[in-house]
Amino acid sequence: MSATTFAGVAAIGEAAGTEEQMLEIGRKAKAAARRLALATPAQKDAALAAMAQAIRARSAAICEANAEDVAEARRQGMTASFVDRLALDPARVEAIAAGLDLVRSLPDPVGEVMSAWDRPNGLRIERVRVPLGVVGVIYESRPNVTADAAALCLKSGNAAILRGGSDSFRSSRAIHQAIAAGLEKAGLPAAAISLVPTRDREAVGLMLQGLGGTIDVIIPRGGKSLVARVQAEARVPVFAHLDGNNHVYVHGAAPLGMARDIVLNAKMRRTSVCGAAETLLVDEACAGTHLKPLVTALIDAGCEVRGDSLTRIVDPRVKPASEEDWSTEFGDAIIAVKVVSGLGDAIAHIERYGSHHTDAIVTTDQVAADRFLAEVDSAIVLHNASTQFADGGEFGFGAEIGIATGRMHARGPVGVEQLTTFKYRVRGAGQTRP
Amino acid sequence: MSATTFAGVAAIGEAAGTEEQMLEIGRKAKAAARRLALATPAQKDAALAAMAQAIRARSAAICEANAEDVAEARRQGMTASFVDRLALDPARVEAIAAGLDLVRSLPDPVGEVMSAWDRPNGLRIERVRVPLGVVGVIYESRPNVTADAAALCLKSGNAAILRGGSDSFRSSRAIHQAIAAGLEKAGLPAAAISLVPTRDREAVGLMLQGLGGTIDVIIPRGGKSLVARVQAEARVPVFAHLDGNNHVYVHGAAPLGMARDIVLNAKMRRTSVCGAAETLLVDEACAGTHLKPLVTALIDAGCEVRGDSLTRIVDPRVKPASEEDWSTEFGDAIIAVKVVSGLGDAIAHIERYGSHHTDAIVTTDQVAADRFLAEVDSAIVLHNASTQFADGGEFGFGAEIGIATGRMHARGPVGVEQLTTFKYRVRGAGQTRP
Repeated sequence: MSATTFAGVAAIGEAAGTEEQMLEIGRKAKAAARRLALATPAQKDAALAAMAQAIRARSAAICEANAEDVAEARRQGMTASFVDRLALDPARVEAIAAGLDLVRSLPDPVGEVMSAWDRPNGLRIERVRVPLGVVGVIYESRPNVTADAAALCLKSGNAAILRGGSDSFRSSRAIHQAIAAGLEKAGLPAAAISLVPTRDREAVGLMLQGLGGTIDVIIPRGGKSLVARVQAEARVPVFAHLDGNNHVYVHGAAPLGMARDIVLNAKMRRTSVCGAAETLLVDEACAGTHLKPLVTALIDAGCEVRGDSLTRIVDPRVKPASEEDWSTEFGDAIIAVKVVSGLGDAIAHIERYGSHHTDAIVTTDQVAADRFLAEVDSAIVLHNASTQFADGGEFGFGAEIGIATGRMHARGPVGVEQLTTFKYRVRGAGQTRP
Repeated sequence: MSATTFAGVAAIGEAAGTEEQMLEIGRKAKAAARRLALATPAQKDAALAAMAQAIRARSAAICEANAEDVAEARRQGMTASFVDRLALDPARVEAIAAGLDLVRSLPDPVGEVMSAWDRPNGLRIERVRVPLGVVGVIYESRPNVTADAAALCLKSGNAAILRGGSDSFRSSRAIHQAIAAGLEKAGLPAAAISLVPTRDREAVGLMLQGLGGTIDVIIPRGGKSLVARVQAEARVPVFAHLDGNNHVYVHGAAPLGMARDIVLNAKMRRTSVCGAAETLLVDEACAGTHLKPLVTALIDAGCEVRGDSLTRIVDPRVKPASEEDWSTEFGDAIIAVKVVSGLGDAIAHIERYGSHHTDAIVTTDQVAADRFLAEVDSAIVLHNASTQFADGGEFGFGAEIGIATGRMHARGPVGVEQLTTFKYRVRGAGQTRP
């Protein structure tokens, strides 16, 4: 691979070691971040438009590069679902370009005055939104992340260092070439969006160390082992969630029809998304009427049910739930079901086994709902709605780069606003402090 | 020392090792944090009032304990300024109690709906302020931090684990006993505010590792070596600033009188605070008229001036500035002075040598001011005001636990609001995701 095929790293000789090469990417990204932070909304939007145009114009080349990745994955005996995540076709490339157009249409968060107030001494203080700086994104086989992450970082005025999976290396490179062309057309530095030009796994470790203080935050996109490694090793802040072990609690005052609709949707709409429900808690106050229909509906919909002793009574097809099942994110058509003795018991179960991602209560009792929403300490808590609404698009953020369960800075869906920080702008007329 | 003298750790036997003891403090703090997060404003305020009352009632005992610390510090030959930071008298104890009253009078941040919106599908989404969880505070010789940090954490619904300096061990313990009495009187768990009951330095290292995932953020209060150690070793987020290398830039269109007032105040009001100016940049456009009076005023006020070649011409008392001086936080009556060729040069100097804490421009040129405020990437940027306004009280936050120069979550003065995070509360009527 020739280094000159990568915009933003053209000056790096092939002889340079991975560490030297990565540190240089970091330095260039940091310099580019300063320019991006001051770029006008029009400049950034022009770049996003040019990027989308370049991706559409290069659709065939992107699909060709992707075909090589797919062929290699098949040679290596990857699973059909893996190959499906990896594969692109003209329709999927068009969806990538449309994603860039969508991000372009979002309001620009940078420069927004979040709050402003006057002090008795006449000082005017404003809290103003500014970009975070340099965002490192580490992802796996989905090549579309290359464009999605680039767009969200650019819109929020951040430089990005993208490290895609080795399986999608050629696809990501082809998409990145279109991105670089778009940046160039808009007069923005190519180093604003860098793609790590090596499959060397050492690059990930270097990014987790922060590339000499140049990376401000790391966002992992991928499976649990990737997220776990990033959370364990990163020396810089991380926006991520390790688990989405989400609960639906059917309270004693839950209408059966609503409960059934929500439970089925929360579990079965898409079983692999992080907002999918993994445990159903049914209050003993309604278990006599609701437990059997809920369990039957799940099994009839193709879901394996693993239940506690009471749940196993209502349907012989229910398998016994193990202790481990309560803390498991199945990511599949499997659900753990338990009868709880009341609201407090439900909340205690969620606190003990949950992952603080997304949890829902179904009830017509407003007092019970309010207590659940207050006491369940998760990024997203819902009353009478499906957990599958845990999504930046569904929240109205336009797009998201992931969902965070940490407590710092970003929590819940991470959209362009969460990719910013703030500074204080103070205007005076010569004030000195007594 | 008997473990039973410490509320919140009474169950820990003396035989327990530091690690076991610290992990137990962490677990209890985490459990207490859940109760605090759900405490009503009235409950928290009652605790703050009872804490202030207990401190006033125990003033003599606190001063006695402090006298032992002071005697030991003197025996160890500590400097007069060190002893002054450590020493308490009835007036200083009253100031500590008044600080608790001040924090009590602040608005309660917890539960505030920061924003709310409706989705087309009828879902109502609210972003609600919630506490961070458990705050670890590591500080040095000032015993008042024990009460100040406890009050800010409690008001914001957080549990706190306080680790004071060994030099103020007895004073902090006496203050903490009053705090524990106040918590008990208000029916809140004593473990809500723990004081690490050992001088063992291992305790700090354990806190920096997060005490088994129980600490959500660490706030160091003290000298540069403490902050540097915390930033280097912490495996949890840190709110801190290592340096306050702040600049005043006197632009070509700066009125001399205003520039002189601001420069003198920014440097000399208090030279040891983190908002003090350390470098004066004078634009060459006004150097002919402004440089000499500014330098003379500083020297006449007792400040040592270290200047570049142009600055040394205007006054023979100016010493030569070394390269190192541009990046030094003197924390004393010393200032580095440089003539810059214009606004861009000033901004470049601040970016290269500054610490992203607080920087000011003096000018009547609004365009120049706006560019400075936009391009200088510091937590606080000021136009025509002294850098010494970098303070939570001056910002109207009532009180602060410190100033952060990091980009994540808290930036600038850290008051009760910055000690909170948020969650999303979603209310529906049975919505499922298509």
